[in-house]
Amino acid sequence: VDEFELINRFFDRPVTTPGVVTGIGDDGAVLEPEPGRDQVQVIDSLVEGVHFPADSNAADIGYRAVAVNLSDIAAMGARPRWMTLALTLPQKDAQWLADFADGLFEAAAEFDVALVGGDTTSGDAVVATVHMTGEVEEGKALLRSGAQVGDTIFVTGTVGDAAAGLDLLRRGVHDNFLINRVLRPSARIDMGCSLVGRASAAIDVSDGLIGDLKKLLDASGVGGELDVERVPMSDAVKSCFDEADRIGFALTGGDDYELCFTATPDAVEGIADITAVGRITDGNELVCRQDGDIVEYEDSGYRHFQ
Amino acid sequence: VDEFELINRFFDRPVTTPGVVTGIGDDGAVLEPEPGRDQVQVIDSLVEGVHFPADSNAADIGYRAVAVNLSDIAAMGARPRWMTLALTLPQKDAQWLADFADGLFEAAAEFDVALVGGDTTSGDAVVATVHMTGEVEEGKALLRSGAQVGDTIFVTGTVGDAAAGLDLLRRGVHDNFLINRVLRPSARIDMGCSLVGRASAAIDVSDGLIGDLKKLLDASGVGGELDVERVPMSDAVKSCFDEADRIGFALTGGDDYELCFTATPDAVEGIADITAVGRITDGNELVCRQDGDIVEYEDSGYRHFQ
Repeated sequence: VDEFELINRFFDRPVTTPGVVTGIGDDGAVLEPEPGRDQVQVIDSLVEGVHFPADSNAADIGYRAVAVNLSDIAAMGARPRWMTLALTLPQKDAQWLADFADGLFEAAAEFDVALVGGDTTSGDAVVATVHMTGEVEEGKALLRSGAQVGDTIFVTGTVGDAAAGLDLLRRGVHDNFLINRVLRPSARIDMGCSLVGRASAAIDVSDGLIGDLKKLLDASGVGGELDVERVPMSDAVKSCFDEADRIGFALTGGDDYELCFTATPDAVEGIADITAVGRITDGNELVCRQDGDIVEYEDSGYRHFQ
Repeated sequence: VDEFELINRFFDRPVTTPGVVTGIGDDGAVLEPEPGRDQVQVIDSLVEGVHFPADSNAADIGYRAVAVNLSDIAAMGARPRWMTLALTLPQKDAQWLADFADGLFEAAAEFDVALVGGDTTSGDAVVATVHMTGEVEEGKALLRSGAQVGDTIFVTGTVGDAAAGLDLLRRGVHDNFLINRVLRPSARIDMGCSLVGRASAAIDVSDGLIGDLKKLLDASGVGGELDVERVPMSDAVKSCFDEADRIGFALTGGDDYELCFTATPDAVEGIADITAVGRITDGNELVCRQDGDIVEYEDSGYRHFQ
């Protein structure tokens, strides 16, 4: 099932309801309850056996369920305010729930997000769905659709860490910076807010840099060039993996929850921890260049645990 | 797993975040993005094999996923505006998805609710989680906690129809008014709005009249008396089931999505389709009376399909 295709085919119908500024198709919806301040709403599920192994630490699941939604809020340039939780679970002991709640509240506390409602249901596998509401100044939400020809493509932080961490986890390695990056991702809320009024388009890197950048290009109706050798990677990934592996992780691995955005270099001068990795062109494709040559990378999309 | 106990134990922590008027513990959260108008947010999941049989009609599942959330919005006296969908599903064919979407949009169109976002994930069983946002005048949301000693207890429409319909479904009966009541419940949005400023407390009857009324009494810190012979039942349920069965359906069956509320009789004069079924007392228990005798009914709670 291809999420994008599904949503487009069956759920993206014309909206005539008042107050809907941006509906389906971005990292979040932009809503205008009343003039002056826009609201951003996002929803994301983590499914046992798909987004985390069945034997995962409950606190990590709770933390991550919040973090992935925070990342969508960040990609919209909004500040998170409230969230609700729908939790489907088999019989779990009290310790599991206490740990899950601890992880959830730990992630929420970092940005003072309140849990304001919930629904628990029984089911064979754990499904944790968080809905989050954020706020942003009217008309200022960062959309995927604003990239302009000539803009520079930037990435925050380093990418590929989470996919590398997942690879280590699968091989039984623990206690590593890279593993922390996949289990406890940090959403780029402050960065997203800094980019408001400066970036022309933004998306969070949840499905892999190439896949997510392509979505941004499609939404903006432009093409792009990505300079592979400029893609920022951590020292940790460089020390654990050879070049071919780490480039694969960085370009097609998911779960990094960094931001990919477009802007003119002037607009983002002085913002730390961002790297220029390419440029927007007037085509309609993404071209990857490595040391001068055009290279092809398969867009593997989300890396399932199972 | 008892939902109520779970939520109280692990998720209902003190909220200090600005803008949260009412958090966990009611039919929905009441939020104040800015002064003047409050927002109500609710979230509810339907799980395959628990809330609907695995072979259910996809359009019915889609319809019901929206309706159960509309009912929570109604119980708060709010008007629904926007919703998001998180859909976990195994490989389903396009026809299933098209049907699901049709049912979902049909229910949404009845109250002009826009689908503004979504997330689809793969999993072994279908889980459809809808989050809905509604609006209500500042400070006017109907809470569970406002019932006063001496208030009358009312129920809208008729109760027990859904549990009766489920019983018929299990016995292979189709094409019946009662079955439509369980597959296509009608949320009492207009009723909820009519009760704003008139009812002292309200809850929707999703888990059974006795169970839900007890929640309202607990939240209000009061007791109540229920006159069993006054509980409104449809002609359909009367014609298909004997008295013992239909009283069981009406008192402990779930899924009716009617409203149970408290008010003085004067306050709700002129409102049609409501029935006085009891009164609020200064105790802390619910007493059921039938033809003058005190009777005990087991609070069976939600009727699982499995």
